[in-house]
Amino acid sequence: MAEIARPTVPTVLPPEYGTPLTAAQAAQMMKAAEDCANAEGWPMVIAIVDSTGSLLMLHRHDNAQRASVDIAIAKATCAVNFRRETRVFEELVAGGGLGTRLLAMPGMTPLEGGLPVLLNGKVVGGIGVSGMHSTQDAFVAKHGLAAIGAL
Amino acid sequence: MAEIARPTVPTVLPPEYGTPLTAAQAAQMMKAAEDCANAEGWPMVIAIVDSTGSLLMLHRHDNAQRASVDIAIAKATCAVNFRRETRVFEELVAGGGLGTRLLAMPGMTPLEGGLPVLLNGKVVGGIGVSGMHSTQDAFVAKHGLAAIGAL
Amino acid sequence: MAEIARPTVPTVLPPEYGTPLTAAQAAQMMKAAEDCANAEGWPMVIAIVDSTGSLLMLHRHDNAQRASVDIAIAKATCAVNFRRETRVFEELVAGGGLGTRLLAMPGMTPLEGGLPVLLNGKVVGGIGVSGMHSTQDAFVAKHGLAAIGAL
Amino acid sequence: MAEIARPTVPTVLPPEYGTPLTAAQAAQMMKAAEDCANAEGWPMVIAIVDSTGSLLMLHRHDNAQRASVDIAIAKATCAVNFRRETRVFEELVAGGGLGTRLLAMPGMTPLEGGLPVLLNGKVVGGIGVSGMHSTQDAFVAKHGLAAIGAL
Repeated sequence: MAEIARPTVPTVLPPEYGTPLTAAQAAQMMKAAEDCANAEGWPMVIAIVDSTGSLLMLHRHDNAQRASVDIAIAKATCAVNFRRETRVFEELVAGGGLGTRLLAMPGMTPLEGGLPVLLNGKVVGGIGVSGMHSTQDAFVAKHGLAAIGAL
Repeated sequence: MAEIARPTVPTVLPPEYGTPLTAAQAAQMMKAAEDCANAEGWPMVIAIVDSTGSLLMLHRHDNAQRASVDIAIAKATCAVNFRRETRVFEELVAGGGLGTRLLAMPGMTPLEGGLPVLLNGKVVGGIGVSGMHSTQDAFVAKHGLAAIGAL
Repeated sequence: MAEIARPTVPTVLPPEYGTPLTAAQAAQMMKAAEDCANAEGWPMVIAIVDSTGSLLMLHRHDNAQRASVDIAIAKATCAVNFRRETRVFEELVAGGGLGTRLLAMPGMTPLEGGLPVLLNGKVVGGIGVSGMHSTQDAFVAKHGLAAIGAL
Repeated sequence: MAEIARPTVPTVLPPEYGTPLTAAQAAQMMKAAEDCANAEGWPMVIAIVDSTGSLLMLHRHDNAQRASVDIAIAKATCAVNFRRETRVFEELVAGGGLGTRLLAMPGMTPLEGGLPVLLNGKVVGGIGVSGMHSTQDAFVAKHGLAAIGAL
C-alpha cells in the first residue's frame, strides 16, 4: 500500500458553536448597528442569524439597495457556517492564486461585512450588513457586536 | 467551405465508470477515514457517493463547521462526475489565466479533498472530506481509499 | 376603528429547541435503526439531523431507491423545523379540505417517517427514514429514537 | 421503554439497479419512439436517462411545447429514482386522501409518461415523454421500451 504523506500545516481548531442568540440580544445588536448607520446617513440592510444559521432579525432601511437583503443574509450565514469573519475570505480571494478557489465553495460569501458573534469563546450567531462600501458595512456590523460585549 | 482547424492537444481518455460502491465498502472507507481524523483530533465531515453520484454515507463530527456538509458532498460528487481528484482543478484555478474559467463550470468544486474511488481501473465512487485545511481534508480522504485498496 | 376578531383556537406551545444531538448519539440511533431495517430485510436511507437542522449522519443501503436520499433528509429536517412527527402533517393532507394547503408550505414534507428527537422535553434533532412503505419507514425511525431513550 | 408497533403491510422489494443503458440502446429506443410519434403527427419531447439518473439522449420535435423539455426529463428521472412507472403515482394522487401527500415528495413527478427500462429484471434506465395528452405520452414511451425488448 502506498504511504500517505501527512500534511505539515498546523492544526487550527475553530471555536465551538454555543447556545443560540436570543431575540433580545439580537434587538440590542440591531439597535446599535442602526444607530451607527443612521448617524452616518447610510441606508443599509442588517441581518442577524443565530448559531443554527436561522434568521433572527432583518431590517432594511428606506433607500437601501434591494440586492442587499440577500447579501446581508449571506454574509451573516457565511460567518456562522464557517465561524470566521467574511473579510478573511475576501482577502484570500483578493490575493489570487490558490485563494481564488473560494469563489467555488458552497455557502461561501467572501465579502467584508459578515461577522460571527462570539460569547465566552463560542459562536452564538452572526451579523451581516450590506448597502454601502464593504468597509462601511463592517463598521456598522461591529457596532452590533459591541452592543452585547462580543467585539 | 471554410476549413476547420483541428486542435492539436493529445487525446486523453478518462477511466470508465464501474459497478457502484456497496454500503459495506463505504462503511470500511468511512471507518478508516474517521480513525485517521480522530487520531489527528480533526473535526470533519466525510461524504461518500457511489459511481452514480448518489450519496451513500455521510458523517459529521462534533464541532465540524456546518458549511462542511455541503462542501464534502460537493467534493465527492465532483470527483465522480469529472473522474479526477478535485486537487487537479484547484491547481488549475490557482494558476490563474485560462484555469480561472473552471469557477464557472457547472458541477465543479475546485477544492482539494475530493477523490474518485478507482477499483480495477474503473470509477466506482468518490469520497469528499471538509473541515480543516484542504491538505488535511485530502489526507483523511486517502485513508478512506486505502481501506479498500483503492489508493 | 374596525374591531379585530380574536381567534378562538387554544394556545398550544411547541417544545423548545435544546442542545444539538452529538455524533455519538447519532451513531447509536443509526445502529439501532439499521439493525431493525436489516432484521426486516428492508433497504433504506436513514438520515439524522441535529437541532440546528444540519445533517449529522446519513446511510444508504444497497438497493435502496435513489430518490430516498433527498426524502429521508427532507423528513428529518421537517420534523425538526416544525417540531412534530411528519405523520401529523400527512394526516392533515390526507384529510383534504383545509389540510391540503400544507402542500404549499415551505419546508413541509407531509410523509410519515420523520420524527423529532426529544430529550428532557426539548427538540435536540430529527430522524428521517425512506425506502419502503411509510409506516415501515416510521417503524425503523422509532427504533432510532428508542436507542437513546427518546421514544 | 414503549413497545413499537410493527406495521402489517407486506414487504415489497423493488427491482435492483443494473448496468446503465448504452448510447446504442438509447438510440434504438429513441428511433422507435420517434417513429411512433411521427406516425401519429404528435410533436413531442423524448428523454432517456440511464440507471444513474443521468441524461443519455433528448430529442425535441418542431412545435413541441417548450415546457416539455423539463417535464420529459423529470418523468424519466422519477421512473428511475423510484423504480416504477410514473402512472402509478399519478393514480395515487388522483385517488385523493393519503395519495395527495405524493405532491410534496422530493423528486416525485406523478404524471403518466415516465417508465423505467427493465432488462433481466433490473432497472437500467428510464424514458420520459411529454408534449401531448399524458396517455399519448406513455404510448410513445412504450414504443421505446419495446424496441429493446423491455416492454
